[in-house]
Amino acid sequence: MDCCHYHFAGEGCDSAFTVDTSRITFGRGCLNEVGDRARALGMKRVALFSDERLARLPHFQKMHQSLLAAGLDVAVYTAVRIEPTDQSFLEAARFAAETRPDGYVSLGGGSVIDTCKAANLYATHPADFLAYVNAPVGEGRPVPGPLKPHIACPTTSGTGSEVTGITICDLLSLQAKTGIASPALRPTEALIDPDCTASLPSEVVAASGLDVLSHALESYTARPYVRRPAPARPSLRPMSQGANPWSDLGCREALRLMGLYLERGVADAQDHEAREQLMWAATLAGIAFGNAGVHAPHGMAYAVAGLVRDFRPSGYPQDEPMVPHGMSVIVNAPAVFRYTAEVSPERHLEAARCLGAEARGASPGDAGEVLAGKLIQIMRAVGMPNGLSGVGYSEADVTALTEGAYPQQRLLQNAPREMSRPVLTQLFRQALSYW
Amino acid sequence: MDCCHYHFAGEGCDSAFTVDTSRITFGRGCLNEVGDRARALGMKRVALFSDERLARLPHFQKMHQSLLAAGLDVAVYTAVRIEPTDQSFLEAARFAAETRPDGYVSLGGGSVIDTCKAANLYATHPADFLAYVNAPVGEGRPVPGPLKPHIACPTTSGTGSEVTGITICDLLSLQAKTGIASPALRPTEALIDPDCTASLPSEVVAASGLDVLSHALESYTARPYVRRPAPARPSLRPMSQGANPWSDLGCREALRLMGLYLERGVADAQDHEAREQLMWAATLAGIAFGNAGVHAPHGMAYAVAGLVRDFRPSGYPQDEPMVPHGMSVIVNAPAVFRYTAEVSPERHLEAARCLGAEARGASPGDAGEVLAGKLIQIMRAVGMPNGLSGVGYSEADVTALTEGAYPQQRLLQNAPREMSRPVLTQLFRQALSYW
Ligand SMILES: NC(=O)c1ccc[n+]([C@@H]2O[C@H](COP(=O)([O-])OP(=O)(O)OC[C@H]3O[C@@H](n4cnc5c(N)ncnc54)[C@H](O)[C@@H]3O)[C@@H](O)[C@H]2O)c1
Ligand SMILES: NC(=O)c1ccc[n+]([C@@H]2O[C@H](COP(=O)([O-])OP(=O)(O)OC[C@H]3O[C@@H](n4cnc5c(N)ncnc54)[C@H](O)[C@@H]3O)[C@@H](O)[C@H]2O)c1
Repeated sequence: MDCCHYHFAGEGCDSAFTVDTSRITFGRGCLNEVGDRARALGMKRVALFSDERLARLPHFQKMHQSLLAAGLDVAVYTAVRIEPTDQSFLEAARFAAETRPDGYVSLGGGSVIDTCKAANLYATHPADFLAYVNAPVGEGRPVPGPLKPHIACPTTSGTGSEVTGITICDLLSLQAKTGIASPALRPTEALIDPDCTASLPSEVVAASGLDVLSHALESYTARPYVRRPAPARPSLRPMSQGANPWSDLGCREALRLMGLYLERGVADAQDHEAREQLMWAATLAGIAFGNAGVHAPHGMAYAVAGLVRDFRPSGYPQDEPMVPHGMSVIVNAPAVFRYTAEVSPERHLEAARCLGAEARGASPGDAGEVLAGKLIQIMRAVGMPNGLSGVGYSEADVTALTEGAYPQQRLLQNAPREMSRPVLTQLFRQALSYW
Repeated sequence: MDCCHYHFAGEGCDSAFTVDTSRITFGRGCLNEVGDRARALGMKRVALFSDERLARLPHFQKMHQSLLAAGLDVAVYTAVRIEPTDQSFLEAARFAAETRPDGYVSLGGGSVIDTCKAANLYATHPADFLAYVNAPVGEGRPVPGPLKPHIACPTTSGTGSEVTGITICDLLSLQAKTGIASPALRPTEALIDPDCTASLPSEVVAASGLDVLSHALESYTARPYVRRPAPARPSLRPMSQGANPWSDLGCREALRLMGLYLERGVADAQDHEAREQLMWAATLAGIAFGNAGVHAPHGMAYAVAGLVRDFRPSGYPQDEPMVPHGMSVIVNAPAVFRYTAEVSPERHLEAARCLGAEARGASPGDAGEVLAGKLIQIMRAVGMPNGLSGVGYSEADVTALTEGAYPQQRLLQNAPREMSRPVLTQLFRQALSYW
């Protein structure tokens, strides 16, 4: 079986896939392009979003300067919350509504870019918070029209938020993360400057890198687009459309780069080559998952992050307990891939090989174990916690985690195998500890 | 040397690259999506472009139906000339100016899609024909604003025009092909339906497939973006920006698919798998060259096609002499790559390997010969003429061909090695016959 082939569409299933992405500029120093590009997009009054740590770093000054030098009027917002909440989104939206910018620029990790997307959305098309949030948690109402132009500049080699139509926050009332997904949220342009990564704490490189690795693995193993029910109208095809030849290409390359450079990039902030390649891998995986979708490890992560009690990881702000996004994802991954491998063993083996696993002579029956084993080796090498127990959960939390994850149907239905409540419970249990 | 790495930018050179593409939908039957998508783009009155042969095929009826079923008003233009000229472009523009559509749909090979782009351009922003044509042949004036939305539906596994900001025609007064390059020309969406390829004559599969193969080879070996002088302003970075990590990824995959499927797809119109994969390779190579640019084989092709005397290939309309585009490109390719291999032997070897060449034990000094040898083998296998002599040229034409190619500086400067007049003369001489 050639794992790169898609066979004819199933009965009632989709038979085409759609690829969309932001305009991307990648390269050292490209943050300097922001002023010229904002002007070329017709911006005059810009809302510049960042977080408090970044606002003290030279990247921020550089961008601010570039915007001012282009003759733009700039309003700065740096009160972004790391791992944002519905509340912090709404505060940002209030700022935007008062400032009335005609364009947005965000400089930061996923927390900043997502906050900027939300501010742009709620300031441009005001509505109750839950109106646009994915069903069944929210109403899943479609965004009624285009947003203001947004130039997103990522500073972590992470989320890929700069090229996706997704924004994620913690819904405080439900103690669970949730998201809004709409092509309208996709930034107009992304400026991806690997120079930003030199100042990243190694813990952030590790966690955000494992988020990237899981974007690639999940998109690569997601339910193939030819097995997803066809949409009512073609223009309603979802962004989470399942694995497809386009996303496969980016996934394989992202996995290859992660296998080569993640440990190096975590170990040494001066290893510019490794950190640049991680940034490029993050871009590729972002484009891939933005057109394929992630599945169970991310769906389960929403509960892992939302129910946090007192975990305070080093390298991150210490004011509140949190499980960094990439960490909340990767702790589920080995358990999930052991379970999904049965459906597409060749793909799981191919993914492990891209990551650098020795898989010669492995049979299809070994696929889950080969991939999980490689993931566990990488997790240990970059200092990840030992599964859910490492971030403060125990057997007693398995039911609550299941209830937190189960509503994430947009993601769970993109998995290649059924993710019922009992399956999730089983997977959370297996994710408690790995070594 | 890892041929996938880009080292620090040269003095005064660019240090970032920009990636842009159309929204793409790929899959069997997706032509049926055109009505829904045209409406989603806000179209009410559509100009539907095609050519006379296609207008008699079921693909055309299907699209026309889909547009009418969506309640759109449709004006049809099928007088597209195969291998269009400035005259045929202007006729199409006249039709558009009279019809005043608010959107365009094109169904056909590069000839149709390019004609539709030109009609959209000159009807939306009227100007003298040479105003927008690339300098030094034309004035190279920038397109003053966006065009009307355009959904391009390719029916050859060929040009990639559906995702590029380029349109090409024969300038009758100069007996040379020339082009217009502007991001504004890039179609809004592309609908790529491999079902179209079943009716392609095998000669068209061969010629347009070799166009694709050369898009990938030229983009992969083009002058790296870090060696191109930086633009005056970042937003002016050209689409022909040189090889970059993004285009490399698409090129390698396109070459791999061409190596596996071109001979099969030419040999057997019923080999649906092969023809589908060729269509996908064409898409990937189109995205790649749309963001990297081609170089000498295409630059030389403009002269080879423009100076045609009495070549009338089977599988193509017989009313006028012509050298099909892909044929006019590939006859130059072995000579060019023998010459350019010296600059980046690893890349040339890697390209040959992607195509399926046996290159174990090859040294850098063998790179040009290994790649040229593989190309010649493929050309023979799919019935290409034996170099320039096979399409009617002789030693006596070498000077005229050089003079026809030399003005194509936009392309020639994207080559990795100098393309002076004497070099071009030498290459045309070496391209006269290969076996
Ligand atoms: N929208 C999407 O498609 C998407 C995808 C995945 C994750 N996410 C979301 O993104 C968030 C996580 O984002 P993240 O992993 O990029 O981290 P982050 O934005 O939460 O930042 C983590 C920490 O690193 C700091 N930091 C960021 N860049 C730095 C730099 N260059 N130098 C020094 N410090 C720097 C930040 O100040 C912060 O303290 C989560 O909320 C997650 O749910 C969104
Ligand atoms: N804009 C760009 O980026 C770009 C790139 C490369 C080439 N081009 C241009 O594109 C043109 C060549 O286009 P092409 O190679 O796609 O061929 P084409 O459009 O010239 O068509 C070749 C022949 O095949 C027929 N045909 C097309 N599709 C068919 C189908 N599905 N079934 C049966 N017959 C079919 C056409 O009617 C025509 O007779 C040249 O003018 C070239 O310069 C443009």
